[in-house]
Amino acid sequence: MALRLACKNCDTFPCARDRCLCPCFKRRLAMTTPTNDSVRQLDQQYVFHSWSAQEGRHPLVIAGGKGCRLWDYEGHRYLDFSSQLVNTNIGAQHPKVIEAIKAQAEQLTTIAPATANLARGEAARLILSHVSDRFSKVFFTNAGADANENAIRMARLYTGRDKVLSSYRSYHGNTGSAICATGDWRRLPNDYARGHVHFFTPYLYRSEFNAATEEEECAAALRHLRRIIECEGPSTIAAILLETIPGTAGILMPPEGYLKGVEALAREFGIVLIMDEVMAGFGRTGRWFTFQHYGIEPDLITFAKGVNSGYVPAGGVILSNEISHFFDNRMFPGGLTYSGHPLAMAAIVATITAMEDEGIVEHAARIGDDIIAPALRRLAERCPIVGDVRGKGVFHAIELVSDRETRAPLPAAQMAVLKADLLARGMLSFIAENRIHVVPPCVVTVEEAEEGLAIIEAALTALARSQD
Amino acid sequence: MALRLACKNCDTFPCARDRCLCPCFKRRLAMTTPTNDSVRQLDQQYVFHSWSAQEGRHPLVIAGGKGCRLWDYEGHRYLDFSSQLVNTNIGAQHPKVIEAIKAQAEQLTTIAPATANLARGEAARLILSHVSDRFSKVFFTNAGADANENAIRMARLYTGRDKVLSSYRSYHGNTGSAICATGDWRRLPNDYARGHVHFFTPYLYRSEFNAATEEEECAAALRHLRRIIECEGPSTIAAILLETIPGTAGILMPPEGYLKGVEALAREFGIVLIMDEVMAGFGRTGRWFTFQHYGIEPDLITFAKGVNSGYVPAGGVILSNEISHFFDNRMFPGGLTYSGHPLAMAAIVATITAMEDEGIVEHAARIGDDIIAPALRRLAERCPIVGDVRGKGVFHAIELVSDRETRAPLPAAQMAVLKADLLARGMLSFIAENRIHVVPPCVVTVEEAEEGLAIIEAALTALARSQD
Repeated sequence: MALRLACKNCDTFPCARDRCLCPCFKRRLAMTTPTNDSVRQLDQQYVFHSWSAQEGRHPLVIAGGKGCRLWDYEGHRYLDFSSQLVNTNIGAQHPKVIEAIKAQAEQLTTIAPATANLARGEAARLILSHVSDRFSKVFFTNAGADANENAIRMARLYTGRDKVLSSYRSYHGNTGSAICATGDWRRLPNDYARGHVHFFTPYLYRSEFNAATEEEECAAALRHLRRIIECEGPSTIAAILLETIPGTAGILMPPEGYLKGVEALAREFGIVLIMDEVMAGFGRTGRWFTFQHYGIEPDLITFAKGVNSGYVPAGGVILSNEISHFFDNRMFPGGLTYSGHPLAMAAIVATITAMEDEGIVEHAARIGDDIIAPALRRLAERCPIVGDVRGKGVFHAIELVSDRETRAPLPAAQMAVLKADLLARGMLSFIAENRIHVVPPCVVTVEEAEEGLAIIEAALTALARSQD
Repeated sequence: MALRLACKNCDTFPCARDRCLCPCFKRRLAMTTPTNDSVRQLDQQYVFHSWSAQEGRHPLVIAGGKGCRLWDYEGHRYLDFSSQLVNTNIGAQHPKVIEAIKAQAEQLTTIAPATANLARGEAARLILSHVSDRFSKVFFTNAGADANENAIRMARLYTGRDKVLSSYRSYHGNTGSAICATGDWRRLPNDYARGHVHFFTPYLYRSEFNAATEEEECAAALRHLRRIIECEGPSTIAAILLETIPGTAGILMPPEGYLKGVEALAREFGIVLIMDEVMAGFGRTGRWFTFQHYGIEPDLITFAKGVNSGYVPAGGVILSNEISHFFDNRMFPGGLTYSGHPLAMAAIVATITAMEDEGIVEHAARIGDDIIAPALRRLAERCPIVGDVRGKGVFHAIELVSDRETRAPLPAAQMAVLKADLLARGMLSFIAENRIHVVPPCVVTVEEAEEGLAIIEAALTALARSQD
């Protein structure tokens, strides 16, 4: 099934301003060799894009990829230090996952959720094999947003309470409850659900609590959370929903003891603890799940992205025995057509198996400890515009400032220059506010990691020089 | 990548009650030949299911399929008169779509939404080629729920208003805003968003307006909607969200003039008209979109299911020029990691192309007019438990009653017996409340349609006889 671009009848490409300029628009278009320009034009004309204004976009064209490398139709190659939206933990086009998708496509692409399906059962079993016996079942969704939606639903039904507490520095998805649980600016134009309360999580570099040390920040943040719970009324709170390490918010490392303290508060007040592992899970920080670094056990775990590197859309909720059993004889009032979609499930089975076989999670831990963390510490010493560096595994952030004393964030205009420069140097980067997130696939090699870090250093040096 | 069931170390299958009975649970499991029992056991142990209690489920096992036939691991074959969840419009495993998925899998499974991608642009272009020039762009989502979420978001931002009007007899998805827009019972345990108001849409057989004719029902329903708009305050209402033909609610055919009247009310009060074509779209009623039967033009169209028959999860919103341009220089504050997922997009391109090439939409219209509608009329004459029949294309409902005079719905226990009997006779059915929905794939042959209708008649006859 070849994709086609220009019209086979009149041989023109539909004009970007008026598709009717092609008189044969309604008819079949014939295959021509795609180019960056033609693919970009097609995109600009017909595709509506997220989180952006629609005009003035000049999107990057990607034709294919392998591992940490992506390329366009004209031979330009890019080093992917973004994992796209921090989802391709296993890199682009892992051959075993591709093979599994093709094999499942041959057998059965889709089937109703009420049936039993081998790939679905096997995916659930493999996911559960990487958490403790506290957890017993998996509910599958299409992605992270509806994973959080359903975790919130479970918590509300299980507790009989309404409110959901989450961090101001968070992102939990774009659907109705998930976007209200989200704390960052993306919630503000979308705040149409009740029962969502936000609080501050630890972030020593820009402390909300006037703390000077991690210990002070941790103690103050836990005191703050306890006060929020008391003031909202413990008996009204269904869930505390947290990204284990808040991701797009800045890869904000919880200080020693913070998550333990949150877990204790949740237990004390009978609140369901939901860890959002959508971005941090499946190897990103060098463990299968990031909460496993912190010696805690949530009640519900939400996941997506890394579970199959997004090769086929999938997400889900891992349920504790207790919450799972709660629904043994009560209907669970949530669902979706593609829950446990066989093609997505086969990609999960192959991804987890490949990650086990190839030691990808352990590799991510080593790359973080041996290459990225030391390199970022050196970068912080050498570049005055680096205000802070932090992270674990292949999940690090470089926070850029225009003044180390005031910690004033590097302005957006300079961040845009930086992003363009990184691209010109051959790197796809993940830029959020005044930060570069260092988030390559978990399979990044030592050489690729060093190459990417050198590009970042060169770009930061050039930026600093241009400011002198 | 073969799927594996029993443990290769200890050769046992994990027990359904305690997965730890297999001492090697945490290790790799080896391939054994799957059976219905082993696949069902795997499902019951590890998979949490939607819209049901978790105990006492005895799920049907499906191993594969082709067209309107599905089969398990033991040679049982089923005629699919459900299209699963009314999504496999093109039938199971259409070879051209499978081929396209495999080809795209080889090239590039996933890429960030901000990039330009050939499959995505082509999918948007093909979708737009089946609507009028009123529409100019497509925003892609993972499924129908987030399609409705994003359409609601667009309408709220475009109008600067809050409220969304939708029908009590509707289903719009399981996420936060979509489930609150939903009118049926599934909303009630999930009603945590503000700004959702429900009203009654026409349903002559169980009229809310004491109407005796379609004309009376239509006029009364439009009067009712006008009163709701007046009482809620027109300047507070962002959108009217309607399934063109409410699906799971009962395939409720809008009377002549109703949708025209709704369109006129929306225009009069500056309200965005969103048609939810998730279930009714892409050929189901014998047109590409069902609203095209009724001579109306919505402002936003939501779709999923039939767009690629669910072979890879996908949905989206088709935007009018006006709403699309509204966001030319304003950021659209919504998005998702898998928006315009290449694998899903390739499946859309192949599905639409195959539907065009093979005349599948026209075929669905003919099967409805020539086979299903006349057969259901005959059924209504012959079977006293048939209270009403209605529909279009491969989208029909048979409403069953225990008394034709009172129109008392056939009780749930008898519907369960009927569903089991249909399965025993080799048919997968879509049963909702007291109705059989006659919703085979659009590719159903004359012979298959007749076979299915004969099975339904035999089951209804047996049920009626058992009651004598």
